[in-house]
Amino acid sequence: MADYQVPLKDMNFLLFDVFKAEALWENLPQLAEHVDRETTEAILQECAKIAEQQVAPLSREGDEVGVSFNDGKVTTAPGFKEAFQTYAAGGWTSLGGDVNYGGMGMPKMVTALHEEMLCSGDISFSLYPGLTAGAGLSLAKHGSEELKERYLTRMYAGDWTASMCLTESHAGTDLGMIRTKAIPQEDGTYRVTGNKIFITAGEHDLTENIVHLVLAKLPDAPAGPKGISLFLVPKYKVNDDESLGEFNNVSCGSIEHKMGIHASATCVMNFDDSEGYLIGDLNKGLNCMFTMMNFERIGVGIQGIGAAVRSYQNALEYAKDRLQGRSLSGAKSPEKPADSIMVHGDVRRMLLNMKALTEGSRALSTYISMQLDMATYGEGETKAQGEALSALMTPLAKAFFTDMGFDSTVAGQQVFGGHGFIREWGQEQLVRDTRIAQIYEGTNGVQAMDLLARKVAGSKGEMMNVFINEVRTYIDATSSSEMNEFIAPLTEAINDLDSLTKDLLVAAQDNVEELGTSANDYLHVFGYTAMAFIWAKMAEVALEKQASGDSFYDSKIKTARYYFAKLLPRKASLIAAIQAGSNTLFEIEDELF
Amino acid sequence: MADYQVPLKDMNFLLFDVFKAEALWENLPQLAEHVDRETTEAILQECAKIAEQQVAPLSREGDEVGVSFNDGKVTTAPGFKEAFQTYAAGGWTSLGGDVNYGGMGMPKMVTALHEEMLCSGDISFSLYPGLTAGAGLSLAKHGSEELKERYLTRMYAGDWTASMCLTESHAGTDLGMIRTKAIPQEDGTYRVTGNKIFITAGEHDLTENIVHLVLAKLPDAPAGPKGISLFLVPKYKVNDDESLGEFNNVSCGSIEHKMGIHASATCVMNFDDSEGYLIGDLNKGLNCMFTMMNFERIGVGIQGIGAAVRSYQNALEYAKDRLQGRSLSGAKSPEKPADSIMVHGDVRRMLLNMKALTEGSRALSTYISMQLDMATYGEGETKAQGEALSALMTPLAKAFFTDMGFDSTVAGQQVFGGHGFIREWGQEQLVRDTRIAQIYEGTNGVQAMDLLARKVAGSKGEMMNVFINEVRTYIDATSSSEMNEFIAPLTEAINDLDSLTKDLLVAAQDNVEELGTSANDYLHVFGYTAMAFIWAKMAEVALEKQASGDSFYDSKIKTARYYFAKLLPRKASLIAAIQAGSNTLFEIEDELF
Repeated sequence: MADYQVPLKDMNFLLFDVFKAEALWENLPQLAEHVDRETTEAILQECAKIAEQQVAPLSREGDEVGVSFNDGKVTTAPGFKEAFQTYAAGGWTSLGGDVNYGGMGMPKMVTALHEEMLCSGDISFSLYPGLTAGAGLSLAKHGSEELKERYLTRMYAGDWTASMCLTESHAGTDLGMIRTKAIPQEDGTYRVTGNKIFITAGEHDLTENIVHLVLAKLPDAPAGPKGISLFLVPKYKVNDDESLGEFNNVSCGSIEHKMGIHASATCVMNFDDSEGYLIGDLNKGLNCMFTMMNFERIGVGIQGIGAAVRSYQNALEYAKDRLQGRSLSGAKSPEKPADSIMVHGDVRRMLLNMKALTEGSRALSTYISMQLDMATYGEGETKAQGEALSALMTPLAKAFFTDMGFDSTVAGQQVFGGHGFIREWGQEQLVRDTRIAQIYEGTNGVQAMDLLARKVAGSKGEMMNVFINEVRTYIDATSSSEMNEFIAPLTEAINDLDSLTKDLLVAAQDNVEELGTSANDYLHVFGYTAMAFIWAKMAEVALEKQASGDSFYDSKIKTARYYFAKLLPRKASLIAAIQAGSNTLFEIEDELF
Repeated sequence: MADYQVPLKDMNFLLFDVFKAEALWENLPQLAEHVDRETTEAILQECAKIAEQQVAPLSREGDEVGVSFNDGKVTTAPGFKEAFQTYAAGGWTSLGGDVNYGGMGMPKMVTALHEEMLCSGDISFSLYPGLTAGAGLSLAKHGSEELKERYLTRMYAGDWTASMCLTESHAGTDLGMIRTKAIPQEDGTYRVTGNKIFITAGEHDLTENIVHLVLAKLPDAPAGPKGISLFLVPKYKVNDDESLGEFNNVSCGSIEHKMGIHASATCVMNFDDSEGYLIGDLNKGLNCMFTMMNFERIGVGIQGIGAAVRSYQNALEYAKDRLQGRSLSGAKSPEKPADSIMVHGDVRRMLLNMKALTEGSRALSTYISMQLDMATYGEGETKAQGEALSALMTPLAKAFFTDMGFDSTVAGQQVFGGHGFIREWGQEQLVRDTRIAQIYEGTNGVQAMDLLARKVAGSKGEMMNVFINEVRTYIDATSSSEMNEFIAPLTEAINDLDSLTKDLLVAAQDNVEELGTSANDYLHVFGYTAMAFIWAKMAEVALEKQASGDSFYDSKIKTARYYFAKLLPRKASLIAAIQAGSNTLFEIEDELF
């Protein structure tokens, strides 16, 4: 397996050349004070060292040994505790945190890149700080002052981690059916009782306390999702002097044996009359949780990118080294017993698919993160656009980046041939570790429905129009003749997306099932189109800088050409399938399956 | 996990209604004597019992325990030895074998369906008899009388299994580089010395002897693939009285730890001055091996089908049971806490993709097997067509069925949501077990080049014309108005394939790299088009029989409609990508990757 190398140059290119982060930050008062280019570059560089030197080396043994469960105790894989302590000691657990409680307050554009590095290093490892950061967002936004002082500060400090406890065995996507109960007490606390499954980092030995955010219902709560509340339930209660108090009856019943992410503890968690504290308003728990879930969903999307980067780096190294066969157009290395497999068109196809989709995903992820920052720190129109685009594109990030990421891990494995199937090379682990990202935090099918039914149809197309107008504004402003090879197909793509959206909304008025049957394909049409937009933007900057002679820009331009020639055409089949309508899916009765 | 149920009705429908096997067999003298409908139905029924009751139950433990290696000895997973003995005692190891040496001489149309059942039961198990049957074909065709009497009879009897020893660590696809040496001896035998890797069933405890077919080179052999010869090298020599003789210095150095098929022994095999016997002519080893490899390649394709069947059955059962959310068009089971997830368009999409691709693959596999039977047992034009179509479609079977099969295992896992990632459900095992089928026996990229460069371009398009003419003849003969919904898009598809092929051959004259960069997409265009042909044939028969009131036919017709509406359109993007040419893959220098 190749040594992981963080693509720092590409990250800086995106932040400062493509998306002009400096100018953005200067205009956002809450960021202007403490975020600048120099700090950011230093942060990314230091974080790269952690990911390359501390996290990546854990991954193979983490997979082989995994977490173990013994009599209620969960022991993490070798080296995880030390690495987490190093990570926390470096202050990385506070990177995106609220500055009022000890956080560093870095924008999402930066923390997202930091997440990618961790995921490239090891997805399992990334989940422990990742969930803590997500829970921190929810707590920072909805928690009381007291809860924030007592818990958030310790989470930022890396003293404690957090989990999110949503799923029960009969209630996954459909959280309205949860049965975990919270009984109000006279002192304002609640007694929480119930069983949760699939709880990532629910129990482990990295920190001495764990902060659980738990969805539960009061006995008299309304039925369904409108009766769900969110509670903070610590593993150990915390005394007034901030020392750890008594055990809070939060126990781990077992851990799951899974296809991948073996070093991530996936726990059955039992709450038995455990003391809990309300976060936000009663019966508004889903709202509070969604603050976290949207963050996590982008984070899960980034897992796909992180794994794809690793897969690409490994496959490229292997392809350059492996000698096998001769080029179709005559031997390229006649002095060697065979050419490297880089000469084969099909190998180049796989590598370029990975390269174009991975760099495209990173760029699109940075763009979506920028919208989140505009929504969080901006005002007026800036804020409104940021809110619309980040809401629209969160499900896209989660589903599209993980679908593309999974494909890239499978493609990387294919480049390795038989060696890709053997554990010692590490390539098959990437496939297994990444597969979950298409499933958890809402399956990609659920994301697609969130996009098409809730966001697009729910706004009568208005949210998608914000994106379409953004792209058309860009097209109108881009007139150089050398950009025409990108602008012409981008124009066609955005027109196709516009027509498709309008047609679908009309069709759904007659038959709402059109939304469900088309959602997945629609999400992918949106993804390929949004990625075309972002590749055009990257190509534009690279063309401007090409004269510098740095081959980085040459590579960008040629990869953009590949994307437009070979990958953007994928939308044609997706559109044709959507246009074929929903009838064939519902005219076949369940018994005929 | 659902109990596996062999789709016997569909198998009989294909053999006797769609492909009129009875009439075919009556016209093939070598088959007419011993193959008829009654025998075949009985065989499939008995084989189904073995697959359902003996093989399928081994699969989970086979995955968890796997094969073990200890001091050169390989121990198979629990129950494998007993199941293999039951399988052999039933005569199944001789099913497709030459009748002159104790084989049952059943046609490929029948043995292919038998293979599918075994693979649905457990791919690892299927490999032990599968490789033996493949090696048997090569030996039957190219071996001397003496070798056949001594070894083939025992392989058919299930006394011994066989392996194929091709790959060396530096020579996979590029077999011309192998280093294993064979030194001729005065008694006509050879001394074989070398190391082979990735040898499936190279060593195990199922049988007392193992027959290795080994590629090696004589010291003075021509360089490259034209200097390769094929040798039979037994683990134990065989005495003249047919008893086992002395150990032949064939040893297993280690076994691989793999992503999946844990119960299949993947061995490093060391030959050390081992006695070997030439099969076929000197330096014609690749020809002899290809008899086996073509058989194995279709067999590997069928692994994809087998796994997809299992995935579909599991996912369907889960989808019907799992209650989660409500239908977009209003609750369908208001008396229950939620609707079954069968109401969701995206779940139906995944299930119908699996159903349409799996039934389509089985039908296409049966069609290709029929061509093989025509090539093997036919004469004149029948034989010529069978040879052309089976040669053309062997790489298609291997790559397309495994690509579709892998997608179906991933889709089935997705239907399960989080439970699909947990080992105990068995669904994730299908993904891991199937993944190798896209890699071994020549990666799918190699298959695509075999199809496009060797078969299509190599025959200047003539081999593809045989297929195109077959479809056009069918189209011309099909005039009923109710078939028009299938015939119209099939006509378009075959015209597209025809134009695409011609354009590609012209483009390749200018730039041969067009073949390498387009091969994978071209194979898929061919696959979707061939599957459309086969779905039209199935729909035609189902329409004729629909009046019987059997819902089986209704299901076929509706699934055909789904295929044409939703899956055939996939060819559009593939064609567009091919038309974009090879420039973007080669204008980017290796250093810019």
